[in-house]
Amino acid sequence: MLSNKLGKQTLVFRNRPEILGTGSVVGVKEGQGPLGKRFDIVLEEDMFGEKTWEMAESKMMSEAINIAMKKAGKTEDKIDVILSGDLLNQLMSSTFSAKDFSVPFLGVYGACSTMTEAMTLGSVLVDGGYANAVVAAASSHYSTAERQFRMPLEHGNQRPPSAQWTATAAGSVVLAGTQNPHICCTHATIGKIVDTGITDANQMGAAMAPAALDTIYRHLLDTGREWSYYDRILTGDLGHIGKQILIDMAKNLGMDMSPVYDDCGVLIYDKEQDTHSGGSGCGCSASVFTGPVYKSLLDGSLSKVLLISTGALLTTTSAQQGDSIPGIAHAVAIERTSQGAIPILSHPEL
Amino acid sequence: MLSNKLGKQTLVFRNRPEILGTGSVVGVKEGQGPLGKRFDIVLEEDMFGEKTWEMAESKMMSEAINIAMKKAGKTEDKIDVILSGDLLNQLMSSTFSAKDFSVPFLGVYGACSTMTEAMTLGSVLVDGGYANAVVAAASSHYSTAERQFRMPLEHGNQRPPSAQWTATAAGSVVLAGTQNPHICCTHATIGKIVDTGITDANQMGAAMAPAALDTIYRHLLDTGREWSYYDRILTGDLGHIGKQILIDMAKNLGMDMSPVYDDCGVLIYDKEQDTHSGGSGCGCSASVFTGPVYKSLLDGSLSKVLLISTGALLTTTSAQQGDSIPGIAHAVAIERTSQGAIPILSHPEL
Repeated sequence: MLSNKLGKQTLVFRNRPEILGTGSVVGVKEGQGPLGKRFDIVLEEDMFGEKTWEMAESKMMSEAINIAMKKAGKTEDKIDVILSGDLLNQLMSSTFSAKDFSVPFLGVYGACSTMTEAMTLGSVLVDGGYANAVVAAASSHYSTAERQFRMPLEHGNQRPPSAQWTATAAGSVVLAGTQNPHICCTHATIGKIVDTGITDANQMGAAMAPAALDTIYRHLLDTGREWSYYDRILTGDLGHIGKQILIDMAKNLGMDMSPVYDDCGVLIYDKEQDTHSGGSGCGCSASVFTGPVYKSLLDGSLSKVLLISTGALLTTTSAQQGDSIPGIAHAVAIERTSQGAIPILSHPEL
Repeated sequence: MLSNKLGKQTLVFRNRPEILGTGSVVGVKEGQGPLGKRFDIVLEEDMFGEKTWEMAESKMMSEAINIAMKKAGKTEDKIDVILSGDLLNQLMSSTFSAKDFSVPFLGVYGACSTMTEAMTLGSVLVDGGYANAVVAAASSHYSTAERQFRMPLEHGNQRPPSAQWTATAAGSVVLAGTQNPHICCTHATIGKIVDTGITDANQMGAAMAPAALDTIYRHLLDTGREWSYYDRILTGDLGHIGKQILIDMAKNLGMDMSPVYDDCGVLIYDKEQDTHSGGSGCGCSASVFTGPVYKSLLDGSLSKVLLISTGALLTTTSAQQGDSIPGIAHAVAIERTSQGAIPILSHPEL
């Protein structure tokens, strides 16, 4: 049997599952940010016409899925599986979104690393011939996350400068097996848990940065690539503090990735938007990738992207019991190909 | 490319990923039940030497993984991925269990359907050559679930006769690509959400039974098999009420599966153990499969098993907001082969 495993943690997708379409839906604040014009839909109000924030988040995910399917030219009956996840207890947004579709459903959870987890497993299903087309999606909502993880919004509590702002955002991709793929997933690197003992839920960037670096380093080792192979390396949502920690730690390993490196949590808001250390939430990297980044891949301004969504695996119970915050990060390599070029053949040993 | 898709919702595993070892760990009450002697470990007390129930559940999962790896003859460095999930908010037990291993981790969630979701994705990774060996695991704990979903245990509230008892249990399998597989996963059928509008969290069997039947029916349709192909069809945890509903609904479709059908939630406790409608929780079908059922496959008293773990996708937020309880079920077909027989060749059209 042909191995699709490269090194210790990296999978190779020889059949190049194509990202046939994406959908991105963001809230009011995200629409006012520097990337606002590059999302598919910006909500006029964050309730999205629903009675609860949870149902608004769920509707945002469904809308992102609908847009991705429409762009991919796929109706619901052509989608074999929906893989999705979110921050709510028992994946409430994903479940109630999946109810909207008559499609088999697999819930996945990796906190804010959920989007690349879903894209990894979706790519495996398509690449291995287990599905013709799948949807991968993730969402978050400031108001659902605040009241679940922190305080009632009405409480109006102060946030420390290191805190991140959960993005009100959803993103979705349709991955499909095609004859002549254009923008496709070529590799995925599944991350290990890295726990440096941080217990402060307002220091999530610091809790996730070591996991992000671990996954990036492993990806480069497994693929035999330099960081400069990519024209964009994007972490999920380390925010301003976590981004700087990652840059510093990478430099200690002899990698100054700053020419190509940035963070979705840093990109999604302006400094003036008072989010302190930047954005977070499953929807942050999901919407930034499926909106602005995918559009740059389409127009050719980007051609090789490494997306590393990053998750802080905390829960209110573990926080209250004094446990540390385990970090995790999964990487997906996405390439723009032209005229049938086969990027994965750059590994002759396969 | 060879399709590994059969019908609308079923995947075929041509390389027959082998269940190389399993581990089952259960609590005191489950040990006193009719299957008590057939689990690997029965706890002497449900705290398992930990300070919190959550950490006890996490330790149970780690122990189940360790036993499965030991039986499979695999050390940690030979496992490519751990796929696991549980009922706790943000998969707390799975996360803190995965911290015990230096292995890439993917969290999965399908409520009590989690075990077959993890086995499905694990089988895909091994069958498709993306991993040499993976762990799939799930857990639940009566005391963590009660206080998260229902009432503080100290409250001592009354349970209606239709309520199910969350099993204190964990189960794990090691799936691996082998030359001459003995007990292997041959197919998986990924379920759709089926929501019949039930809102009573004490009627989970009724909420899940239609989803279970939908998945079984779809599995038989996709594979072209009769129910009688299997010598055991086991649902996850419909309990006494849900089991009877499934039997009745199947009869309406012309299938009287009663000669081979049973439910893990019914099997795990005696009627005298005062659990009312039987067991539930991710650990219920996980431990019953990895303990008693796997042992029956090993000794040859069973040879063709269809395991359908069933999930009630509710959360306290959705329950408090008056939403219904979506049901889901994923099926995995497991066969005992002898002398290199290839069960999946019973589909000549492939």
